[in-house]
Amino acid sequence: MENATDAIAAAPVPEFEATAYAEFSGIIDHLWLMIAAFLVFLMQAGFAMLETGTVRQKNAKNIMIKNVMDLVVGAFVWWGFGFPFAYGGGDYSGGPANGFIGAQGFFFINGYDSCEGGHPSECLYPIAPSIDSFAGWLFQWAFAATATTIVSGAVAERCSFIGYLVYATFITGFIYPVVVHWIWSPYGWLTAFRDPSIASGAWVSPGVVDFAGSSVVHMVGGCTALVAAAILGPRIGRFDANGNMKAFAPHNAAFVGLGTLILWFGWYGFNPGSTLALSGGFVLLAEKVAVGTTLAASGGGFAAILMCFIKYRHLDLPPLCNGILAGLVAVCSGVAVSEPWACFVIGLIGGLFEFWFAIAIQKMKIDDPLDAAAVHFGGGFIGMLCGGLFGSRINTTAAYSEDQPCGAFFGCGGSQFAVNLLAAVMVMIWSMGMGTIVFGAMRLAGILRISPEEESMGLDVSHHGGAAYDDGKNHDSSGFEK
Amino acid sequence: MENATDAIAAAPVPEFEATAYAEFSGIIDHLWLMIAAFLVFLMQAGFAMLETGTVRQKNAKNIMIKNVMDLVVGAFVWWGFGFPFAYGGGDYSGGPANGFIGAQGFFFINGYDSCEGGHPSECLYPIAPSIDSFAGWLFQWAFAATATTIVSGAVAERCSFIGYLVYATFITGFIYPVVVHWIWSPYGWLTAFRDPSIASGAWVSPGVVDFAGSSVVHMVGGCTALVAAAILGPRIGRFDANGNMKAFAPHNAAFVGLGTLILWFGWYGFNPGSTLALSGGFVLLAEKVAVGTTLAASGGGFAAILMCFIKYRHLDLPPLCNGILAGLVAVCSGVAVSEPWACFVIGLIGGLFEFWFAIAIQKMKIDDPLDAAAVHFGGGFIGMLCGGLFGSRINTTAAYSEDQPCGAFFGCGGSQFAVNLLAAVMVMIWSMGMGTIVFGAMRLAGILRISPEEESMGLDVSHHGGAAYDDGKNHDSSGFEK
Amino acid sequence: MENATDAIAAAPVPEFEATAYAEFSGIIDHLWLMIAAFLVFLMQAGFAMLETGTVRQKNAKNIMIKNVMDLVVGAFVWWGFGFPFAYGGGDYSGGPANGFIGAQGFFFINGYDSCEGGHPSECLYPIAPSIDSFAGWLFQWAFAATATTIVSGAVAERCSFIGYLVYATFITGFIYPVVVHWIWSPYGWLTAFRDPSIASGAWVSPGVVDFAGSSVVHMVGGCTALVAAAILGPRIGRFDANGNMKAFAPHNAAFVGLGTLILWFGWYGFNPGSTLALSGGFVLLAEKVAVGTTLAASGGGFAAILMCFIKYRHLDLPPLCNGILAGLVAVCSGVAVSEPWACFVIGLIGGLFEFWFAIAIQKMKIDDPLDAAAVHFGGGFIGMLCGGLFGSRINTTAAYSEDQPCGAFFGCGGSQFAVNLLAAVMVMIWSMGMGTIVFGAMRLAGILRISPEEESMGLDVSHHGGAAYDDGKNHDSSGFEK
Repeated sequence: MENATDAIAAAPVPEFEATAYAEFSGIIDHLWLMIAAFLVFLMQAGFAMLETGTVRQKNAKNIMIKNVMDLVVGAFVWWGFGFPFAYGGGDYSGGPANGFIGAQGFFFINGYDSCEGGHPSECLYPIAPSIDSFAGWLFQWAFAATATTIVSGAVAERCSFIGYLVYATFITGFIYPVVVHWIWSPYGWLTAFRDPSIASGAWVSPGVVDFAGSSVVHMVGGCTALVAAAILGPRIGRFDANGNMKAFAPHNAAFVGLGTLILWFGWYGFNPGSTLALSGGFVLLAEKVAVGTTLAASGGGFAAILMCFIKYRHLDLPPLCNGILAGLVAVCSGVAVSEPWACFVIGLIGGLFEFWFAIAIQKMKIDDPLDAAAVHFGGGFIGMLCGGLFGSRINTTAAYSEDQPCGAFFGCGGSQFAVNLLAAVMVMIWSMGMGTIVFGAMRLAGILRISPEEESMGLDVSHHGGAAYDDGKNHDSSGFEK
Repeated sequence: MENATDAIAAAPVPEFEATAYAEFSGIIDHLWLMIAAFLVFLMQAGFAMLETGTVRQKNAKNIMIKNVMDLVVGAFVWWGFGFPFAYGGGDYSGGPANGFIGAQGFFFINGYDSCEGGHPSECLYPIAPSIDSFAGWLFQWAFAATATTIVSGAVAERCSFIGYLVYATFITGFIYPVVVHWIWSPYGWLTAFRDPSIASGAWVSPGVVDFAGSSVVHMVGGCTALVAAAILGPRIGRFDANGNMKAFAPHNAAFVGLGTLILWFGWYGFNPGSTLALSGGFVLLAEKVAVGTTLAASGGGFAAILMCFIKYRHLDLPPLCNGILAGLVAVCSGVAVSEPWACFVIGLIGGLFEFWFAIAIQKMKIDDPLDAAAVHFGGGFIGMLCGGLFGSRINTTAAYSEDQPCGAFFGCGGSQFAVNLLAAVMVMIWSMGMGTIVFGAMRLAGILRISPEEESMGLDVSHHGGAAYDDGKNHDSSGFEK
Repeated sequence: MENATDAIAAAPVPEFEATAYAEFSGIIDHLWLMIAAFLVFLMQAGFAMLETGTVRQKNAKNIMIKNVMDLVVGAFVWWGFGFPFAYGGGDYSGGPANGFIGAQGFFFINGYDSCEGGHPSECLYPIAPSIDSFAGWLFQWAFAATATTIVSGAVAERCSFIGYLVYATFITGFIYPVVVHWIWSPYGWLTAFRDPSIASGAWVSPGVVDFAGSSVVHMVGGCTALVAAAILGPRIGRFDANGNMKAFAPHNAAFVGLGTLILWFGWYGFNPGSTLALSGGFVLLAEKVAVGTTLAASGGGFAAILMCFIKYRHLDLPPLCNGILAGLVAVCSGVAVSEPWACFVIGLIGGLFEFWFAIAIQKMKIDDPLDAAAVHFGGGFIGMLCGGLFGSRINTTAAYSEDQPCGAFFGCGGSQFAVNLLAAVMVMIWSMGMGTIVFGAMRLAGILRISPEEESMGLDVSHHGGAAYDDGKNHDSSGFEK
């Protein structure tokens, strides 16, 4: 997470080749950020297939439209407000930035940094937030879209379109960016990368270890998803008169599997890409992170398929997929500071916890069609704890610095665990609080949920011009439409 | 679009490290081209799913076969003829190349450039057209396949297989390469990269701004698609006796959404990859292009979903997807020379125009099942105009040079707009003319269209050995086939 | 396949910039390996869709679960045993390694190489096998998963889950790693990269030309698949009383096409990534390999679609896809040493051979639902022969060294052909022998195959909690479940 310039400064470079060194470091680090951004972008296709496959057939087109619109709306909002709130400093009068929220670079309106000499295309650094390149904006945008998409699973099959537009705007433009500012910007009150020369106000030290966003991305999405599902209420028929839950089978298991595999693929941008650089030795960290990510997915899958067999005596696909995803979510926090074996264990714990948390949420009569809260809130919370427990010295130094404490299990005491717990609780309070305000207000205004008739008919027919699938039976045998 | 060698030459490199500098620039630039080529290749999977999802179920396998065959046929034709026509110079007698068509390097038969010293693998530069590396061939091949695939949507559900083979060969091997030669090769009469020392004949100055192919790829595909659909005639039952169009619903909306998301993903190779290099400052241009691409997709999506709601009072997936694609198509021309906000506006205009152009084409009783002409011809044409309007000075200098005029809206007068309009019209005339000859000749020969009986039955059953889907109802309860 | 360090050593680097040179070479080569690993990983999604689409609907969820579990189980086994067996040297007492199997670095338990100076993250090289980076582990893991997945197609629709777990563990953890050790490690008795200073025992010289795994990956998977299908026996109803085969149509042709396109995409990691490096001139080799891969896919597709038309008088998707895949499999061996035109020819031969080999296997009453044996064993075997025939001098020197013989067709005599034939036969004997032991033992133990009742019902209902698809007809008109 340390930026490339620092890394370069740390390495011993002979004077005479400094220009080429800086140039190639810059190219490679930006290239890495672009590749990672593209991979994280593709996770939207993964979420789209996972969610489409999981809902009932009558709402398949609706959920696909929402997933596509997440990107359309999200790009606009992140450009206008989200990124400036997340990574912006203070104002342009030179006053120091605060630890709660940024305010700089709305709509990229400040143009470019002045540049002298060199190729003209080297002048394309926007005057903007602390991550001052377009590649940084793109990478962070793909993360923001992930946080927002998580919620669409939890409110599937009954949320209105206007409700969707409102919450997508708030999450991408405000709820998520504020947490990013806290934990990942150099100004935040919880950040491990705080730069006191530019940030003002109190802060927590040591900063949080949340390398790739167990709390920043997944808990924000998962916590909001939980309150959203609770406020929205269950789908008609989900719980019977006695309060027993009826299983609503995924309408297309192939989509569920494909979506999960695409998500796993995208996670190789999500986690390794969070090094933000390859130069200065970070390439070795990035590939260690890729291995840890792989083993966490494996651990999560093992845990969930075993639990599924123990509880239900069969092996089903959705629990397997959710276990893998929970492992991936859980490892985001500590993946850079942990040994590969620890990543496997973190994934295992994540998959285990997610399985039972999903059942607990069902027992509370909250209807979360995708188990999004269990995967992202549950997996993310466990991950934050593990991020304070499993960090070894060599890995923590490589990923952060010698000053960052290692984990409680590795002899550095409980300070990192305490800070990570604090961060997890604060993110929970913030996300659930803001989620309650946004979804509660819409419920009070009566714009959040579709009518029971529309719900019974399915959103595809009632709102989107017809069913998602057409098997051609409305055509007669000679090919003419009946 | 400037090539890597030029960029290197322009940058100030101290004498003593020139070798390493050139080597690393070369590696990074070739790596970038390969990554971009792979992403553009994957767009074929996006087109395949978009087209398969959109056609009726009885032709699902047919359209998938055609999409796969596009690559099989396209690789052969591009290897043999397409690339040599596109980027070849004159002949080997040393005469200068002409501005209309190339003729060099057929089937890579000229072997490799001589090389002395260095590692043996450094000798693998083919003696070939001006883009003289295998990575260049691969990247350009993926573009050629895109141009060809566009047409398969417009002629879906009624074109014969022999007709498909003929047109795919002509587009990949001749119609498309000629336009590439005009606009992207150093020899072309419309190119912004003309090298007078090797090219002969008259040319237009300033050259066209078509960074990633609004005209070269999308208008060629879209214009050919329009005449193809017109010459082929509508599907049976598309228009009733009174001339009213009947809606043929996409048979699988999930495929439509997945295809669109994969296409958007691939566009990050299509547009940013069109820098062809990262060294010499081009990495910053590439990432600015990635951001502009994102905002154009967003703009196109907003425009189309709004139009859809205004006209039909519901929010449907295909218009949303086509709007996003039209935004992406439109921005190809000007994405490198425009500010991010301008890219959003270009996308918005593209999405808007596409929506109504699709309806206009329907009113003309032309049956284009995928609205391929509206998206690629319509979006591409608008994009060419915008490429002459929205270019700012700093961006135009970074992407092209100080000599390339900026856009009419930014104080450089109308010369760039005029040239871009000329290019758009010439590409239109060329593509529609050649398309009329190819499709008209096949229609006259009676080999273009399947019989009404086959069309009613569906191509899958009549030509491809059976239906695309089998729900197992032809098996009895004990698993034996009935 | 030569490693980056050698390449660097070979290149003339001025003393004063050696540090930066080594650092950038390292970054670029590791980045390349990661990108390639990610692409090969995505091939699992390709296999998943291809296999899911090809089986009957009642087993769709089962095959998806197995494909996902391949990665879950495979990551654990490859971490624990597979990688150490494949690339490990001898023991830590300093004794030389043997040519048959490695034994070093189980579960990464040996920690990291000591490192002094430099950035702390540069200390993350695991003490491990000869490919001593995490990126190397990841890339090789993705290959191992491929070898294992191939078998799941051949045993589809009737293999028990316990049977699947046992064979997946054995292939990933033992059968495949042993062949890797033979052919790709510096210790192997068949390797072209043998380092006599660290390896003991007899070896074959010249070593095998199997650049990307025609034998190592595909023949191991395909040979095991063939004996597995034979031992398991055909699906109920596949052959009638007279021994005639009944066609079991793929249940979803769109998935078949999508899977094939994703596989082709992933092959751009599989083959070009097998350079393992870009520095030292290897970037040009990598892109030549990408072009050869493309043309081989084209050749395979042409051959198969033509054969399909000649034999069946229609053009069907599965033969087309299998032809493409067979072309890609066949070219793996010789892609680096052959000219592009030779790659096209190799693909053509591969597609041709695969088509008739699949029919021959059917005539032997072996039921291989995916034709996995024909594609991977057939294509791989042909590929190994071609790898000894088509190598040209310049390409062989670039990819291996001046000492590696070129192909028999290019004037270097038959030694390379003989060695490649030997390797193919040895891999066949090993894989089929081990496959017979593993599958034979399970059959004798009665745990290999599900009961006829379960098979008739389909695995999804009998083992996985319900059907893969739900069209909502179990809901009544008001949305409540019936």
